[in-house]
Amino acid sequence: MVEHIYFSDDTLTLTLLDQRFLPVQEDFFVCQTTDDIVKALQVMVVRGAPAIGVSAAFGACIALNEALNTPDWRVTLAHLLEYIANARPTAVNLRWAIKRMRKLWLENNTIEAKDLLALWLKEARLIQQEDIENNRKMGFFGGELLQDGWTIMTHCNAGALATAGYGTALGVIRGAIEQNKHIKVIANETRPFLQGARLTAYELAKDGIEVSVACDNACALLMQRKLVDAVVVGADRIAANGDTANKIGTYGVAIIAKEHGIPFYVAAPSSTIDIETLCGEDIPIETRPSKEVSHIGEHRLIPYNVKVFNFAFDVTPAKLITGIITENGVLRNPYQKNIAELFKHKK
Amino acid sequence: MVEHIYFSDDTLTLTLLDQRFLPVQEDFFVCQTTDDIVKALQVMVVRGAPAIGVSAAFGACIALNEALNTPDWRVTLAHLLEYIANARPTAVNLRWAIKRMRKLWLENNTIEAKDLLALWLKEARLIQQEDIENNRKMGFFGGELLQDGWTIMTHCNAGALATAGYGTALGVIRGAIEQNKHIKVIANETRPFLQGARLTAYELAKDGIEVSVACDNACALLMQRKLVDAVVVGADRIAANGDTANKIGTYGVAIIAKEHGIPFYVAAPSSTIDIETLCGEDIPIETRPSKEVSHIGEHRLIPYNVKVFNFAFDVTPAKLITGIITENGVLRNPYQKNIAELFKHKK
Repeated sequence: MVEHIYFSDDTLTLTLLDQRFLPVQEDFFVCQTTDDIVKALQVMVVRGAPAIGVSAAFGACIALNEALNTPDWRVTLAHLLEYIANARPTAVNLRWAIKRMRKLWLENNTIEAKDLLALWLKEARLIQQEDIENNRKMGFFGGELLQDGWTIMTHCNAGALATAGYGTALGVIRGAIEQNKHIKVIANETRPFLQGARLTAYELAKDGIEVSVACDNACALLMQRKLVDAVVVGADRIAANGDTANKIGTYGVAIIAKEHGIPFYVAAPSSTIDIETLCGEDIPIETRPSKEVSHIGEHRLIPYNVKVFNFAFDVTPAKLITGIITENGVLRNPYQKNIAELFKHKK
Repeated sequence: MVEHIYFSDDTLTLTLLDQRFLPVQEDFFVCQTTDDIVKALQVMVVRGAPAIGVSAAFGACIALNEALNTPDWRVTLAHLLEYIANARPTAVNLRWAIKRMRKLWLENNTIEAKDLLALWLKEARLIQQEDIENNRKMGFFGGELLQDGWTIMTHCNAGALATAGYGTALGVIRGAIEQNKHIKVIANETRPFLQGARLTAYELAKDGIEVSVACDNACALLMQRKLVDAVVVGADRIAANGDTANKIGTYGVAIIAKEHGIPFYVAAPSSTIDIETLCGEDIPIETRPSKEVSHIGEHRLIPYNVKVFNFAFDVTPAKLITGIITENGVLRNPYQKNIAELFKHKK
């Protein structure tokens, strides 16, 4: 399985496989400052809600080291954490990871920098390990929902490259395959950033999993021709009522799946559920630079002076979701009640 | 309004604005042989069902001239007409135009080549003029369906560039504007060939009509946010029951429009209705080269050895269509009955 997040405790350096240039180039992006981390998140060197969370946790360690060179490291650090937390607005895992690091600091609020760094390095590794473990659990629960011989459509990349490893949606596919089922995948190319065509195809092909790429436009035809048995996607934030923000286009896939009677699953760790966000309308949707739509590389696609919409995410209403696969099992309708129940037990 | 099909009666040369390179380059592709015509159709120098029909009619004239250099021009010409008619499988206008030229020949079957050429040149010009006239009539009937202040989503390019001029779907928008309504357009970029981003944006911006481009993926979000008041698209073939083949992705847009209660109109001349095709399942769907999906220009997007789906069209079932705007007025459900009625009067 492809690895993409490497952290050195010695040099406090985060080295990320640069996802902008996959699959054509396997370049690495090295982060040694908070600015590097924020840039890596914003330009999408690393993307995918859980991978963003893990990177942010390592980023907090880098920020701490950076703060040491300033008059009051505590004040500087608080600001740098906020800077990282705001790098992107939609994925809740970013804020979740920073909140978790901050909590550890608050619980030890007279701690010296050196000792906090030791605590945080351990915590960041823990977040990384937990993510992989959670993905494997999701893979097990989700794998059981897929039948031998099925073809799964997925949107964007919710795989090893979007997480600490193994993947959420693609983890479910890997889980089914580990249960000795033969599973094929159709990756929607996922304009504009082409995470499906570039990243999902790349990591599944590397693992020898049979994958085809289709334009996002082909979704309805493929379903009409009965070439899709189920949809499994990841999530960037799930509201308390089950409404799910994910990569732009997901909502359309969910509507089209419903029209064809095809089950639509979301796979996400419980850290992606934000019980403070009551419903989908409360999820902020990031708009990204027009150039992602108007150009491919330096190749211009649309005329000058024509306006472009580039919303990065959309929200799928809970009513269109057959089940939400988490590390604690599969949540079903009524989501509001079942999510509240899950978080009651978690407390 | 942009012009793109030029034919010289003197040199028997068809000069086409090369739509592959718009909006970045305004190149021309010159056709002097049947091979040139077939290539222009297949690689999509010219595309759009009515524009294909007009080009094929001029192509017949070129074929006739070419046949004169062979031992039996009649036999050669019959073959060349068949060659042109089969250049692309889905758009019925291609076969319709060739059939119309052939009929004229059959009605005058002892005619000399020189006289047939004179007849055909006149007929090709007539097809071209009729197409523009029909588009203007559709613009009038369709324009009446759009309300002042509306934003119209369109998919692919069903504009001046897809017809002899004025356009079918974009003709409806032009018609509404000529009725003094303020109309904005959202052009779906329309992967993989990007007819929306490149061509619709180009020709509307040239005419000063307010147009924005969105990824096909944004359709559901834009409708959810009430940014779309109606959808108007063109058609490549309409079956006798109203099922409509159009550019890949159209069917998905229709499903998503229905989910949001947004009217979905098809604009097409009656030459696009093929009463010999009983329903959508009988419409052949062209599959095109993988490279259209896997590359943008020479820029590779997906890993090597990953399979690609590239269906060029899909079929929208009649039940999802609010109305079919033709030069004879707006057809409504029940389509089977109303289409049969229209063709009875046409005979």
